[in-house]
Amino acid sequence: MNVVIIGASGYSGAELASLVAKHPNLTLTGCYVSEGSLDKNKLLSDLYPEHLGLLDCPLLPLSVSAFDDIQSDADYVCLCTDHKVSVDLAPQFLAMGKKVFDLSGGYRLANNDDYVTYYGFEHQHPELLNEAAYGLAEWNHDAIANAKLIAVAGCYPTAALNALKPLKQAGLLSSESIIINAVSGVTGAGRKASVGTHFCEVSLAPYGLFNHRHGPEIEQHLGHKVLFTPHLGNFPRGILETIYVQLKPGVTKENVASAYQVLSSEPLIRLLGDKVPSIKGVAKQPFVDIGWQQQGTQLIVMSAIDNLLKGAAGQALQCINISMNLDHTTGLKGAF
Amino acid sequence: MNVVIIGASGYSGAELASLVAKHPNLTLTGCYVSEGSLDKNKLLSDLYPEHLGLLDCPLLPLSVSAFDDIQSDADYVCLCTDHKVSVDLAPQFLAMGKKVFDLSGGYRLANNDDYVTYYGFEHQHPELLNEAAYGLAEWNHDAIANAKLIAVAGCYPTAALNALKPLKQAGLLSSESIIINAVSGVTGAGRKASVGTHFCEVSLAPYGLFNHRHGPEIEQHLGHKVLFTPHLGNFPRGILETIYVQLKPGVTKENVASAYQVLSSEPLIRLLGDKVPSIKGVAKQPFVDIGWQQQGTQLIVMSAIDNLLKGAAGQALQCINISMNLDHTTGLKGAF
Amino acid sequence: MNVVIIGASGYSGAELASLVAKHPNLTLTGCYVSEGSLDKNKLLSDLYPEHLGLLDCPLLPLSVSAFDDIQSDADYVCLCTDHKVSVDLAPQFLAMGKKVFDLSGGYRLANNDDYVTYYGFEHQHPELLNEAAYGLAEWNHDAIANAKLIAVAGCYPTAALNALKPLKQAGLLSSESIIINAVSGVTGAGRKASVGTHFCEVSLAPYGLFNHRHGPEIEQHLGHKVLFTPHLGNFPRGILETIYVQLKPGVTKENVASAYQVLSSEPLIRLLGDKVPSIKGVAKQPFVDIGWQQQGTQLIVMSAIDNLLKGAAGQALQCINISMNLDHTTGLKGAF
Amino acid sequence: MNVVIIGASGYSGAELASLVAKHPNLTLTGCYVSEGSLDKNKLLSDLYPEHLGLLDCPLLPLSVSAFDDIQSDADYVCLCTDHKVSVDLAPQFLAMGKKVFDLSGGYRLANNDDYVTYYGFEHQHPELLNEAAYGLAEWNHDAIANAKLIAVAGCYPTAALNALKPLKQAGLLSSESIIINAVSGVTGAGRKASVGTHFCEVSLAPYGLFNHRHGPEIEQHLGHKVLFTPHLGNFPRGILETIYVQLKPGVTKENVASAYQVLSSEPLIRLLGDKVPSIKGVAKQPFVDIGWQQQGTQLIVMSAIDNLLKGAAGQALQCINISMNLDHTTGLKGAF
Repeated sequence: MNVVIIGASGYSGAELASLVAKHPNLTLTGCYVSEGSLDKNKLLSDLYPEHLGLLDCPLLPLSVSAFDDIQSDADYVCLCTDHKVSVDLAPQFLAMGKKVFDLSGGYRLANNDDYVTYYGFEHQHPELLNEAAYGLAEWNHDAIANAKLIAVAGCYPTAALNALKPLKQAGLLSSESIIINAVSGVTGAGRKASVGTHFCEVSLAPYGLFNHRHGPEIEQHLGHKVLFTPHLGNFPRGILETIYVQLKPGVTKENVASAYQVLSSEPLIRLLGDKVPSIKGVAKQPFVDIGWQQQGTQLIVMSAIDNLLKGAAGQALQCINISMNLDHTTGLKGAF
Repeated sequence: MNVVIIGASGYSGAELASLVAKHPNLTLTGCYVSEGSLDKNKLLSDLYPEHLGLLDCPLLPLSVSAFDDIQSDADYVCLCTDHKVSVDLAPQFLAMGKKVFDLSGGYRLANNDDYVTYYGFEHQHPELLNEAAYGLAEWNHDAIANAKLIAVAGCYPTAALNALKPLKQAGLLSSESIIINAVSGVTGAGRKASVGTHFCEVSLAPYGLFNHRHGPEIEQHLGHKVLFTPHLGNFPRGILETIYVQLKPGVTKENVASAYQVLSSEPLIRLLGDKVPSIKGVAKQPFVDIGWQQQGTQLIVMSAIDNLLKGAAGQALQCINISMNLDHTTGLKGAF
Repeated sequence: MNVVIIGASGYSGAELASLVAKHPNLTLTGCYVSEGSLDKNKLLSDLYPEHLGLLDCPLLPLSVSAFDDIQSDADYVCLCTDHKVSVDLAPQFLAMGKKVFDLSGGYRLANNDDYVTYYGFEHQHPELLNEAAYGLAEWNHDAIANAKLIAVAGCYPTAALNALKPLKQAGLLSSESIIINAVSGVTGAGRKASVGTHFCEVSLAPYGLFNHRHGPEIEQHLGHKVLFTPHLGNFPRGILETIYVQLKPGVTKENVASAYQVLSSEPLIRLLGDKVPSIKGVAKQPFVDIGWQQQGTQLIVMSAIDNLLKGAAGQALQCINISMNLDHTTGLKGAF
Repeated sequence: MNVVIIGASGYSGAELASLVAKHPNLTLTGCYVSEGSLDKNKLLSDLYPEHLGLLDCPLLPLSVSAFDDIQSDADYVCLCTDHKVSVDLAPQFLAMGKKVFDLSGGYRLANNDDYVTYYGFEHQHPELLNEAAYGLAEWNHDAIANAKLIAVAGCYPTAALNALKPLKQAGLLSSESIIINAVSGVTGAGRKASVGTHFCEVSLAPYGLFNHRHGPEIEQHLGHKVLFTPHLGNFPRGILETIYVQLKPGVTKENVASAYQVLSSEPLIRLLGDKVPSIKGVAKQPFVDIGWQQQGTQLIVMSAIDNLLKGAAGQALQCINISMNLDHTTGLKGAF
């Protein structure tokens, strides 16, 4: 299959480009940036020297003729673009008959109101929100295989939902709100220059209290109320979530362990039991690491991912694998 | 006043030594390590090259004759020793008539049972637990001034208690358990070589779930149930706590702001209102930074300190200032 | 004395503001930024939360009326501005009768040709290049005390010149070019947002080979040919230079040690002998740390400073102290 | 081919274990540690959580019966042990008829005197020093293919020799000593707990001036005098060398570029021309990145590798590939 990546100069786009380039069943046929991008016509490996030799392809401007090229050359279109740009582009590529994998948040939420509240814009294609499959690979296999538009799950939600859906599905959660304390590495803030991501300014600090857009994404796809508090941490890659869950009275440790068995055969989930995950354990790895400890009805679940892999490009590739009926791990496991 | 420091080779001890050496009203008359220490007879500045010129004093072994020297030369004895060592040493220096500032946890909890449960040893001087003043400087001024033994507050509890006592005192807390998600820099783990503190092994990860000894310390000095979960982070100094509080129904933002006014004239507390603190803001600074945001009855309080300053040596010096009836900030504010 | 700082929002400017604010004999009477700055009218402590309480002063736009205020309020004007801006501003403040301390490179080199070659602009006030005193504090005391315009030495040159001038002065250097391999922390690249200073992009790498402007600055003020190669390192503050020197035949270790004695009584120079300096030893410290080791005629000198202190704001304050006939270390030593 | 790794708990050993486990033509049949190791019988993935699922094999003690198992099960024995241990073990495995890849320095130098001078011990098997092939993959293909004992090149020498041998071979070097200024990440210091590798103690600093054992290794395998000065840097993986070379008079830029063409078809060498390499570009990559800039007869060559890959385990695997007549890059390129 031929794959093009729109927005290839950013961290998620470049990571996905490297995965596609190394994948045995995929061909990277084009890397695009916006027509106004300063990186236009540079080689991708000029921006990412670690990929010299692998990604010596030009960053093409997404001009009118580029759409023609994509029309003729691509099977899959991956959008690593800003939310609003993705909302605009997806229908155009769908109209070409392409399968679209959108790594932005443009098609993850349920309705236009959510976009107004959490993204600050009116959604221009609300009719597509129901047609998009939510790209949480382990939980939505058939929809991902069949849909034409995949809204690849957000980074924080991927860590949270894989940690919580087993408990929800097993009926172990009390009705209380779940507290998710999350810390992300700086690649999560994107590659764009800003004082906030300056080497000397980054420091562990919370942000987005009560209003981060990944809060409603988690709630809608979990079906449970959460209080989600993200932090920026001083490391490049990775997310660690420490999740405080109130279980129903009487739920035993065996019940909890049993609930997690639903994930036990998933090759990209590593169940740690009562061991704790760490950023070190998942950085540059395609896995979700999940550990938990319980005292009475209080459960603490800890979930860790690499935000650029399982939290973005890795999961997008997993969705592509599902679409091609390949093993989930093709081009992912053993590749790092 | 003449000050000696026992356990001066560790991070807290060396930090306190540097503060005492620069303090206008104190003289550093001796720096001691255990007789078996490999650092014995080295200069403190050999271990801490940043303090070359300031701390070119030898690390003396705590021999029998050392006790004689301390007897004759010291007014204040600061214990930067292991918990169990502090328990043993404090009564000896009290018997000499010295005022003792203990930076360990040896005299912070209420009774022997707590020590068995959380520290793993029988306390040999439980009768002193009631005599020790808890060295949480802003909240216990008179006791600190008058007691002969000061149990300087722990690092995590200092950040938590200053953030929560105003709410407790104002009667705003519901009865629910408070969740404290805390991240500490690596100096908090001490200077002793270990794989866990190896540069290439440190990573953001939780530890001590449900059983860290600072949990009961916070509970006893707050008078409220907490769930305390510490993490080790990949930075050298600082603690950030993100604290999830359920308020009583009807508590307004004005009530909360008003409650924090109890700290508004404290020179080493910085109330940030709805701004968020960060590790960067407090590293190498003597302050507690406290911010908060509220939605309904859910309050998130964020508290940050430098674990070696306000969380250890800085607060010890503040307690010394209180004992000498000096301004709290002498040798602290403007000194960094 | 009343001090104003132009360009106070950058790393050097803010560091100098904090030093002036804590200095016993100085008053910080104004912090200015360019009229077009996005930081205009913000508090300096909004940008630097560590200085909350100390630097809650507004960043004033350098408007026409600002010049009037400076005319009436300031004794000393510190320029922490871009090189070209400093060239333009210095004569204006000199014309007001102010003493000007310029932390840029605008007045450090000998003639206009150097500015064309190394800075890329024609110098508009070449007649002032001879009047400016080079602000290398330990070596130019009288000129600094007497001149109206002080060109505070550059960061890399400060580390290099203090390490090499003793050898030059003692006549120990062979005629061969000296190789200076230097690594600077990221604050050296300024606070302006750029991809190059993005947390995830910074990495140890060389830059500016054969053409960095600090090369000629070192050569002119040393009087010896050097090959200067800077690197950017992944730490916030500090410079380490490893300097490869060919001595004249027959120069002994005693000759070298003796040459460095010229600095032995300087309070902000720490001579380490055959010990090696490190970034850790000088970060947030006002010192130059100098160590050396010799084998035959090959000498390796290692020199380390904090680029924002001894390499910028600290040395500027030292020059101010010299101008006021205060001890060099006032407001510097013991202040960190 | 079946591979066993002795000393698998260290950074090089574990890295090699992960490469072997993912290699299409190799089977990892045993991971060993010394009988006294505290890690004995732990799973390798307990020490390296990133390899959970890949390296869930026990760290077996190297007991008498272990030698029997290796005799029957292994084709290739990789020694990731201390220099002295390697010297002792290599002949034992050679006597079994195994091909031995030694990642230590035990068989890299020319004669016993070098070991006394630079390693501090008498070599017990000096007769093997001539039989060992020096495992610098691009330069010693036939010897590596044929020898029974491969002394895999050291980390610093790998970066230096690939950068300098093209110039030496082309006869471009003047007779002057070459200055190599090198900075290594902390994995280069090993995984053993020590104060020097404590997270809070690591800082950029030189070490081993005039006497590091990689100096003579470079000299012997280059055939040219060098002054080698290593530094420890505050990053986990990678080596950057900035190399100052005096060319013969009249050597042109074309001559230099032409000399490097000898490496142009090597798949694990990336020639950057006048671009500069960085640690970021090579960390977790199997390459040597080489860039250079020239001014007159002064050439600056910059060379960067990942010390655990091209500087240790990656090159060892490359030597294994050569021994099996596989492509150099099998299991290496595209694997990260």
